[in-house]
Amino acid sequence: MTRKPATRHATITDVADAAGVSIKTVSRVFNDEPNVRPLTRDRVVKAALDLDYHPNVAARSLAGRRSFLIGLAYENPSPNYVVDLQTGALERLKGERYRLLVLPFADVGAASGKMQAIARASGLDGIVLAPPLCDDAATVAELEACGLPYARIAPTTDGSHAPDVAMDDRAATQAVIDHLVGLGHRRIGIVRGDPSHASATARLEGYRAGLKAHGLTADPVLEAQGAYTFASGYAAGKALLALADRPTAIFASNDDMAAGVLNAAYEAGVSVPGALSVVGFDDSNIASVVWPRLTTVHQPIREMAHDATGALLALIEHQEAPPHQTMPFQLVVRGSTGPARA
Amino acid sequence: MTRKPATRHATITDVADAAGVSIKTVSRVFNDEPNVRPLTRDRVVKAALDLDYHPNVAARSLAGRRSFLIGLAYENPSPNYVVDLQTGALERLKGERYRLLVLPFADVGAASGKMQAIARASGLDGIVLAPPLCDDAATVAELEACGLPYARIAPTTDGSHAPDVAMDDRAATQAVIDHLVGLGHRRIGIVRGDPSHASATARLEGYRAGLKAHGLTADPVLEAQGAYTFASGYAAGKALLALADRPTAIFASNDDMAAGVLNAAYEAGVSVPGALSVVGFDDSNIASVVWPRLTTVHQPIREMAHDATGALLALIEHQEAPPHQTMPFQLVVRGSTGPARA
Repeated sequence: MTRKPATRHATITDVADAAGVSIKTVSRVFNDEPNVRPLTRDRVVKAALDLDYHPNVAARSLAGRRSFLIGLAYENPSPNYVVDLQTGALERLKGERYRLLVLPFADVGAASGKMQAIARASGLDGIVLAPPLCDDAATVAELEACGLPYARIAPTTDGSHAPDVAMDDRAATQAVIDHLVGLGHRRIGIVRGDPSHASATARLEGYRAGLKAHGLTADPVLEAQGAYTFASGYAAGKALLALADRPTAIFASNDDMAAGVLNAAYEAGVSVPGALSVVGFDDSNIASVVWPRLTTVHQPIREMAHDATGALLALIEHQEAPPHQTMPFQLVVRGSTGPARA
Repeated sequence: MTRKPATRHATITDVADAAGVSIKTVSRVFNDEPNVRPLTRDRVVKAALDLDYHPNVAARSLAGRRSFLIGLAYENPSPNYVVDLQTGALERLKGERYRLLVLPFADVGAASGKMQAIARASGLDGIVLAPPLCDDAATVAELEACGLPYARIAPTTDGSHAPDVAMDDRAATQAVIDHLVGLGHRRIGIVRGDPSHASATARLEGYRAGLKAHGLTADPVLEAQGAYTFASGYAAGKALLALADRPTAIFASNDDMAAGVLNAAYEAGVSVPGALSVVGFDDSNIASVVWPRLTTVHQPIREMAHDATGALLALIEHQEAPPHQTMPFQLVVRGSTGPARA
């Protein structure tokens, strides 16, 4: 029997293949469940040993050695988004034995390749991955390899077998463009999100597709780079408003950056929505505390975190991954958008 | 036998000394381990009772049954404040074996009297209490009684033997009034905080003391009730601006409410700071994203959470409570305050 290369951990599928049994049977063996014939059991154990397969997680669970600790991993500069994530996950855990460990990371690089070590050190039963970690190929590959149950919130990439609860960022951004074009805007700028977040790409694509659908040409000069922070939105807004042929509307890829654009407009003496319409994304707390209140895409962050956590519990408890789920978005029109100036 | 003064909790060493047995024996008794003679057991239990010793935590530790889980309990409507709290606590735990469980409560009532049950259910080694739970008499009394190590962040009340890291809210608010009076304001309103938070009282006292120090009389009509939420600040701001003899400056007891006052001013067509100066409290994220940026009291929330968590670790590991610590505040002057209109 060939050993797997050391760079990749053997998975339960590898063991099942090698032993010529189903995944369910492998799971039964490592969970000490009845109804497995001794010969089958031996074959599975031998395959696992040959493959250097570490059944710790799955075995521990059903052997009653569960920690009942779930990790929520994220890297996000918006406090509003973070608290919504936590609230959704905690609401789902209410009444369950499971408790939530928050695992914030300073950047994707700080998390990449370290999930397994963190999960082991904290004795986690499973992990919920929020953006952008849910789209980080290295993190996903690592979790797939080590067999730790995980679920993803709002991923925009494939390549994972984990359950996830997503939203169609591209379609939502197209709806933003529809709204702005409907108000007569033709020169529409975008503040792009942090390129390490896959959502930034999805929203940029939606912006371009939206323009195209209305026969408008995307102008590279109107695509300003941001980083999902207020400060980056402020800087990008300033740059866009300094253009000779400046936009009459700006879509910022999240609310924090839209608030930054509002500040840049105030400083430049550009009235909103009189001379400039501004749209955000998320409908986080900040969208309702700035002036004027932001037209934005309501992203059901709490609900997504709630359902992804539920999917993870199903995975941990019943080894059953609920199907992929897509949540509806909603364009919330408030005071920051208005008719384009004639 | 002399009772230990109530200000210090008896330790397992005290019990061992008093009973004339080894620490190991005391640990055995409280862990219900076999091989302890009934007479010895009785002696240990008696010594523990005499010393008012609460064995649960210490015993569990020495028996190696520490969970290395610490709870951070709070009830706060401001996401910015919450994330700052968490960040400070997590920064302190970096490199330690301890992990953080976030314990948000919908209101003080939901937490009151339930700390012990929550701590037991989650197997916590200790709890950090943030405002307003740190000032909730029932919560403090319960933790004192059950002997679970805890530390307090920014308490404004006494009655606890736990270590704490505080700030002088009263003095900070007086500094706000000094600043406003220095700008020529004489008619200064306040938006009071949630009365279930002791900080609301401390800030109201500071406001009144500040006026008095400048020979100004507090006018009850200028003391509007808020609840530390944006919406409550907006409503209070609207009410204050509707007064026939309206204030030229408003101190809101936190930044979220100050942002609400700004919105009320915009709606009423009152320019800030031209016709109205607005001051917040906290210097949370929101203070820097609204327009104009808020003059506010910088409360070192992260640092307080960091140090309170450190104090809790010292208590858990060495049964040593570091002394009470007071952090300096800072008045940050930004664009929302200016000279009173002549």
